[in-house]
Formats: sequence, structure tokens, C-alpha cells
Amino acid sequence: MSVLIAHLGPSGTFSEFAAATYADSLKTQSTELKGYSTITQAINAIAQQEADFCVVPVENSIGGGVTFTLDTLWESEKLQIQQAFTLPVQHALISKASQLSEIKTVYSHPQALSQCQRWLAEHLPNVNLVNTSSTAEPLPYVKENSAVGAIASNWGAKMYNLPVLAHPINDYPDNYTRFWVLGQAAATSGQYTSLAFSLNSNEPGALLKPLQLFSALNINMSRIESRPTKRLLGEYIFFVDIEASADEQTTQTALELLQIHTQKLKLFGSYNLTTIEKVL
Amino acid sequence: MSVLIAHLGPSGTFSEFAAATYADSLKTQSTELKGYSTITQAINAIAQQEADFCVVPVENSIGGGVTFTLDTLWESEKLQIQQAFTLPVQHALISKASQLSEIKTVYSHPQALSQCQRWLAEHLPNVNLVNTSSTAEPLPYVKENSAVGAIASNWGAKMYNLPVLAHPINDYPDNYTRFWVLGQAAATSGQYTSLAFSLNSNEPGALLKPLQLFSALNINMSRIESRPTKRLLGEYIFFVDIEASADEQTTQTALELLQIHTQKLKLFGSYNLTTIEKVL
Repeated sequence: MSVLIAHLGPSGTFSEFAAATYADSLKTQSTELKGYSTITQAINAIAQQEADFCVVPVENSIGGGVTFTLDTLWESEKLQIQQAFTLPVQHALISKASQLSEIKTVYSHPQALSQCQRWLAEHLPNVNLVNTSSTAEPLPYVKENSAVGAIASNWGAKMYNLPVLAHPINDYPDNYTRFWVLGQAAATSGQYTSLAFSLNSNEPGALLKPLQLFSALNINMSRIESRPTKRLLGEYIFFVDIEASADEQTTQTALELLQIHTQKLKLFGSYNLTTIEKVL
Repeated sequence: MSVLIAHLGPSGTFSEFAAATYADSLKTQSTELKGYSTITQAINAIAQQEADFCVVPVENSIGGGVTFTLDTLWESEKLQIQQAFTLPVQHALISKASQLSEIKTVYSHPQALSQCQRWLAEHLPNVNLVNTSSTAEPLPYVKENSAVGAIASNWGAKMYNLPVLAHPINDYPDNYTRFWVLGQAAATSGQYTSLAFSLNSNEPGALLKPLQLFSALNINMSRIESRPTKRLLGEYIFFVDIEASADEQTTQTALELLQIHTQKLKLFGSYNLTTIEKVL
């Protein structure tokens, strides 16, 4: 039986590329990718037994945290992070135009457009820029009209059999996205542990206590990100990554003490991080 | 001469409504709203002397921080927060259909669709949901086709003279967005002070020191949000709001000491926050 891997669709997205990269790493098994129209639906596919794993973006070095992933994980039951990996992001200008000057309109997701704004100002200063809901969405239209271009990945160009006119075109060369592989197996050991908590109170210093706890136990926090509780403006859930494994005694002590200073505490598991330098 | 107020366009967005609300509050002056296609362009309109003020969303109680606003402010020179205000967000189903069952497709921004998912599942379980780049974008199309609907604000319906079939339809009733009014005047006094900093190092506890400083001086931090530095995955800028005025002695002490623990520190000014309960 195939291993079913859910991801954010449609075909041609960078999330599909990440899912395909993860599928490749499961060398001995047959795999099947399943695209969903939202990150939330892709993650919920595991609970609904439509998928064994879900590959989701967590954080991009330019765009920051992927809020739908964090919010859905906070709401979920039993999902654990099996593995993390980082992929370089390189944007490409995809078009059937025979030269740049033929392109009148460029479509892409607002994040991708903003990450290529200097390149666009230099090479395509007069084009009309149009926002789309994903980088893959405009690709079928690019296939039909040589006066338009799209900013997407080489993977997107390959999936739609479209020419790449320029690559890479992102203004910040160090553009990386970190992905998590979510699943239902227990994840108790690894380089990193991810957790999230809401605070007991909004009094001065309420956030300080959890952070002091990690520091006192010499546990490095590699990331902290706040998300709204969705109850009141100004009430937050904090997502924290620590450089420690849940099966270490120090981590267990930290987690026990953390219960005192938090209202709700969720553990998303311990896992290793792989950095993949392969770019299509 | 009119006071020129920049905002995220096109006509019908909630940001335009916020700018109009701010314009109304400047009772004695003539005002003119100017829509821009991105938040970054709207903010930069001040430096380019195309606008006197810019009204931008900062944070929503469901969606969280507005990353384009924070990133652009960090990159800007001399912009200060003149005022903050909070508006309730209520989503409406806008369509020319005579009844719900005629609607086959609903268009909206992914955040608005996700904020109405329970209502949609109950009242329109079989419609096709399509992402758009703003809530206002589909409104011209809704005007032409009675088989489609859009989720936007009553303000959007009013701007396009379209009927509202249901309102409010958001799953979380307590949905608020906070806006900042940016301008070039010095902002040294008010209930809140906003600032941002990058850290000297990524060593354990590097973030702890700035937070301990505020706590030791009994300054409450009402918000902390991390954004990537755009250099390396895992390097952050922290945006902090404190409940103190920049012209108080304690705040000045805190800011001086903060210089020691931060690499780059930017002060965005002190301002008052108004909560507006008026909904269209």
C-alpha cells in the first residue's frame, strides 16, 4: 500500500515540490501525493484517515511564520512533528513570450511579487502586477497567453511544461522555507522540540517566566512566535522551538515547570532538521 | 488644502473603510483618500510626499500581525505612529442572488473565507470556494453574475451598491482589527509606545535580557511579535508594544539600557489607542 502524503495544492505549488522531495526521501516505499486547497484541509486529512503524513510550510526566511500551519496545529489533536527540512526558494519568471518586452502583465502571490520587486523594477518596470492566491494559480493562463508571465518555481514550470525566462529572480538570495512533516506517530526524540502555550494572565512579566525557565535550564530557544488566541485582541499563544529533545531529563523538568506558568500547553514532538540544498 | 490619507486599495477594502473612519474624525478639515495596490506603496506614499498620513492594519484578533506593515515600518525612515484605533470586523455575504441556493461559487480573501468556514459549512455546504487577493477584488464580478457571492464588509457592498444577503457571518464574533495612523510628526507622548529591535547574538537567553529590562522597570509589554531579519532563517526582529509613554523617565531609562542588548533599535513613537465600536 502506498504512503499517502497530503500537501497544499494545486499542482505546481512549492508545497507540492516539498512533498515530492519528502516522498523521494522515503526511498523504499511507494508514495502518493494528495493536494488540498488549504493548509488546514491538508493537515486535517491525517485525522480523517485520507493521508499518513502531511508536509506543510512552517516558516520562510523572508515572509516569516506560516500562520495557517501554526493555528491548525494548535487546534489539532495528536499530531506530532515527525521531521523538519529546509529548502532553498528560488523564484523564476515563467512565460511563453520570446523576449521580456512582450510581457505586459505578471501574476503571482503577493509574497512572491514582493520578494522580486527589485528585479521587476529593473527588468520589467512597466508591467502590470496582479496578485493571485498561489504561485501556481496563474500557470494555466500563462500557457494560453504569451503576453503574460508568472513568478513561480522551476517546479511549477516543469509541471505545466512552460519555459523559464529568468531564474533566480528573488531580491534576497538567502531565501529558505522550513517544512514540517506531520503524522500520528509519537515523536519523543530529536534535535528540536516544538511546543506552544497560552499564558495564565496578561500581567506584566507573564511571558518572562516561561522564557526564564528555559534560560535557567540552559535550553536554547531557537524561535518564538506569537499568534492570537482568537478570543481577545491582545491575548496570544506562543509557539516556541527549543534546541533539546523531549526525552532528555532537563527538557522533562522544563515542561513540568512550564505547566505552572501556562494556561494550556501543547507539545508537538521532537524531531531532526535536515537542510536540503538541492534546487530544481 | 486637503489632508491626503493613503490606504490599501482598491475601493471596497476594509482598509479604505478604516481610512474613511479616520478622515471622519478629522472633523474640521477637508480630506482626500488615496488607494494604493500594496501596503508598502501606501506607507511609502508619505516619504514621496504624495500623502500626509497613511492608515494601515497592524493586527487582527483572528489573523494576527499584518506582516507587510511591520516589515515596511522597520525599513522606513522617520515614520511615527500618530494614533491607533481598533475597529470591529464583520463579514457579510454579498450577492445578487435572490436566495442562498442560487449561489454556486463564493469568492474572498483566504483569511475571510477561513473566518467564516463554520457559517459556510452550515448555510452553503456545496459551493465552490475561491481565493482572491483582497475581499474587494471579486465585487465587480458579483455585480455581473447572480450565481456568485463574495465575502466582504458592508462597506464593500455599499461602495459597489450590492445587496447583503447575510451579516454578520464570521464564526468568531469578537473579530477586531487594530490600525495605525502613520505620519512624519514627532510622537513622544501617549498610552502606548511601539518599538522594534534585532538582537546582538543568538546565544541562549539573548531575547530574555530586553524582556527582563521592561519587567524590572515595571513596564508592561502588551505585545511581542517576531519577524525574520531576511538574512538568515532563524534570525529575528522583535516588534514590541509597551504600555508607557516615551516622554516618561522610566521609559527613557528602559530605551537607553535596551541599546546595550540590541543590535538595531527603532522607536516608532508614542500614541493613544481609540476603540471604535461603530460598525457600518
